[in-house]
Amino acid sequence: MTSDRYMRFVAMLMTGPTQHHTAAWRHPESVNAQLDPQWWQEIARTLERGSFDGLFLADTLTFGNTAIADKGGQIALLDPLPLIALMAQATSRIGLGVTVSTTFVPPYGIARSLSTLDIISGGRLAWNVVTSWNDVEAKVMSQESLPPREARYQRAHEILELCMEFWSSWNGARVVADKEAGHFIDTSALSPVAFEGEYVSASGYYSTPPSPQGHPVIMQAGSSAAGRDFAARWAELVFTLQHDLEDMQAFYAEMKERVAAYGRAPEELSILTSVDPIIGETTEIAREKQAYINSLVEWDVAVATVKNHLGVDVSDLPLDEPADALPDEALSIGALDVLVKGARREKLTLREAVFRYATSDLTPQVVGTPEEVADQLEEYFRGDGCDGFIVTPTQMPGTFEAFTRSVMPILQRRGFIDPGVNGRTFRQHLRAAPAAH
Amino acid sequence: MTSDRYMRFVAMLMTGPTQHHTAAWRHPESVNAQLDPQWWQEIARTLERGSFDGLFLADTLTFGNTAIADKGGQIALLDPLPLIALMAQATSRIGLGVTVSTTFVPPYGIARSLSTLDIISGGRLAWNVVTSWNDVEAKVMSQESLPPREARYQRAHEILELCMEFWSSWNGARVVADKEAGHFIDTSALSPVAFEGEYVSASGYYSTPPSPQGHPVIMQAGSSAAGRDFAARWAELVFTLQHDLEDMQAFYAEMKERVAAYGRAPEELSILTSVDPIIGETTEIAREKQAYINSLVEWDVAVATVKNHLGVDVSDLPLDEPADALPDEALSIGALDVLVKGARREKLTLREAVFRYATSDLTPQVVGTPEEVADQLEEYFRGDGCDGFIVTPTQMPGTFEAFTRSVMPILQRRGFIDPGVNGRTFRQHLRAAPAAH
Repeated sequence: MTSDRYMRFVAMLMTGPTQHHTAAWRHPESVNAQLDPQWWQEIARTLERGSFDGLFLADTLTFGNTAIADKGGQIALLDPLPLIALMAQATSRIGLGVTVSTTFVPPYGIARSLSTLDIISGGRLAWNVVTSWNDVEAKVMSQESLPPREARYQRAHEILELCMEFWSSWNGARVVADKEAGHFIDTSALSPVAFEGEYVSASGYYSTPPSPQGHPVIMQAGSSAAGRDFAARWAELVFTLQHDLEDMQAFYAEMKERVAAYGRAPEELSILTSVDPIIGETTEIAREKQAYINSLVEWDVAVATVKNHLGVDVSDLPLDEPADALPDEALSIGALDVLVKGARREKLTLREAVFRYATSDLTPQVVGTPEEVADQLEEYFRGDGCDGFIVTPTQMPGTFEAFTRSVMPILQRRGFIDPGVNGRTFRQHLRAAPAAH
Repeated sequence: MTSDRYMRFVAMLMTGPTQHHTAAWRHPESVNAQLDPQWWQEIARTLERGSFDGLFLADTLTFGNTAIADKGGQIALLDPLPLIALMAQATSRIGLGVTVSTTFVPPYGIARSLSTLDIISGGRLAWNVVTSWNDVEAKVMSQESLPPREARYQRAHEILELCMEFWSSWNGARVVADKEAGHFIDTSALSPVAFEGEYVSASGYYSTPPSPQGHPVIMQAGSSAAGRDFAARWAELVFTLQHDLEDMQAFYAEMKERVAAYGRAPEELSILTSVDPIIGETTEIAREKQAYINSLVEWDVAVATVKNHLGVDVSDLPLDEPADALPDEALSIGALDVLVKGARREKLTLREAVFRYATSDLTPQVVGTPEEVADQLEEYFRGDGCDGFIVTPTQMPGTFEAFTRSVMPILQRRGFIDPGVNGRTFRQHLRAAPAAH
């Protein structure tokens, strides 16, 4: 063991056909059982058996156009919360991330749902905090339009503050269920919450007892300045889209600095960069697999995906010129950033960049034999590009099976994988480090 | 078989110490495992094995005072939604009711959660629609105070209208997952929803495919004029608190008329009246059990319960006089109604009535041998007092075990119990009738 930290792995899942790669669901071996609850339990068990530290269910409330639904792009068919309960029940160690937006509902209900899931999972919950990025989500949620990014993040800060107040308001109060004395809850330490914010307010008692973690692990993916600041203050896991090691390093260094500026230890934030592993028996087979799955991406779904993430209809732009025609602002700054940087680095035309975006969002497709894939991940990790990886699939669940069966054992032998201990909370697990030698 | 309809049974559950009887949790045999997810699965399996048609998780968002939490009154410790997912997974036939208020959040999220649970349960979901009754709930949910009852019900009507639009917007569109053609959803029939109400509005696509039932069975318990009108329009199951057969008959006749006024067939609404069975080997044992459990109710929890349901602090009223001093208005009209009528019928002092309210909400405690309990239920049912029963426990899970093991077989022999068929949805199950002879 020559590393002082473990490499973390979290699987990205979504209750639709696409995680990142918009053709993954079309792979001959992919199973499209998105509406089968037992299927989600099976995937959770596969990941846990394969030493993944966590999984998370990304989410989007609706689709802005029928093309993305028709062509099987990034859409969510189900509410992730009940599925997390089922996945918790099917597993005992893996961390479970659920996406909930702070933009549309009062925080009390969010806090209560998350406390309940942390209790159900025995302390394995992570909250992937999003502020939503698309007006189409606002419109189904009874709002005219989405508030501007700054206001959304200010609201998100308030909601985290208030949720933390709810979660700490029991102060040691607890269920005693003393039948003789007739005391069910020892309420002596219980405090009412009184919060008066610019966006939300609340007063009263929080009704759910403290969950095993006290509060869920906070996970976040926003890449704008406001998003990074939010992550630096609150997040314990960051999920980022970076095109290559250089970009990863820049983001990593900047985020660790921002965290320190909030008086937090840099290791309190794990930065996970997105990768799309494609594994073959030989390098050539892996490359052929990559070419095959990428060739299944259709132009329509690529355009719809970019429109969905950036708010830009690229059909109107000069497609066979460099991607510089893209605007400076976009719905998702992270998406814009990886697209522009990736296209520039690889000197792609806009058309090529859009196609590539519809594969792995222009994050690395890590392609090769198990040994080669492990080497590449080690390079990113040792190069201070990340603390670990968000793994996105090109087939479901084949990518996760191939990865855990062939790459994970190599990384295990190299000492990068946390052996884990039953009964640890997700937070304790994430902060565990290898014993010094 | 001499009845043309089956008697329906739904168990009332709540994620706290108390369902109705505020001393049930203190019974020597009661298990207080409210925070254990497997416990909820076990209860669901017990009820399903015992031929219950359904169960429902009542809910309240917070507690207005610490007395009710301290003394183990009617509070909810957990969000019921994830528990319903777990209970669905543990069972295959029983209907599953979940309580969601229409007052605080946009309907899209509600619709999506309920679609997801109906999918997870294979079409066994019921939505217990509540409008919330207590300002303390509003205050934790970031509102100054609760809107008046009329406005809450107007909003509830709109929310049901809008949810029904979401739930029917796929019009036969479906997941096809055609890998060859690259079509994931056949969107040709999919319509965007466009709804502009006084309280809520929404436009856009609904992202969740149709669930097995299309929409959950609608369940409701409001007893005010506005509540009854809401139930007559929307509900398929009504849960009511009535003191005796005479009150049951009046409510039953009035509700069936209201339903007809909406152009619905009276049998589309099943009216379930609340009962608290206490079963013994002999009549005497049953009576002693009743006296025992009722004696465990403490004055403080009784006062806190009435304050919670009615908004009235009875400590300030003349306790040793008839209950007439109660006001005409209350937070819950149903609660006020059963308290006043029960007290009048039985010539109770206010103190006695408050104590009795803290047992079974002054709904019948049906006490006796299994045969006697069955007889009493048959009398209510044959007398057109109800279509079945909400069963509340005096011990957990002992009441449900005793009832399903001893009373249910008698009612089965008498032909009142739906034998059920695997794979039917809850709605199909509720509308099934005995074959004619």
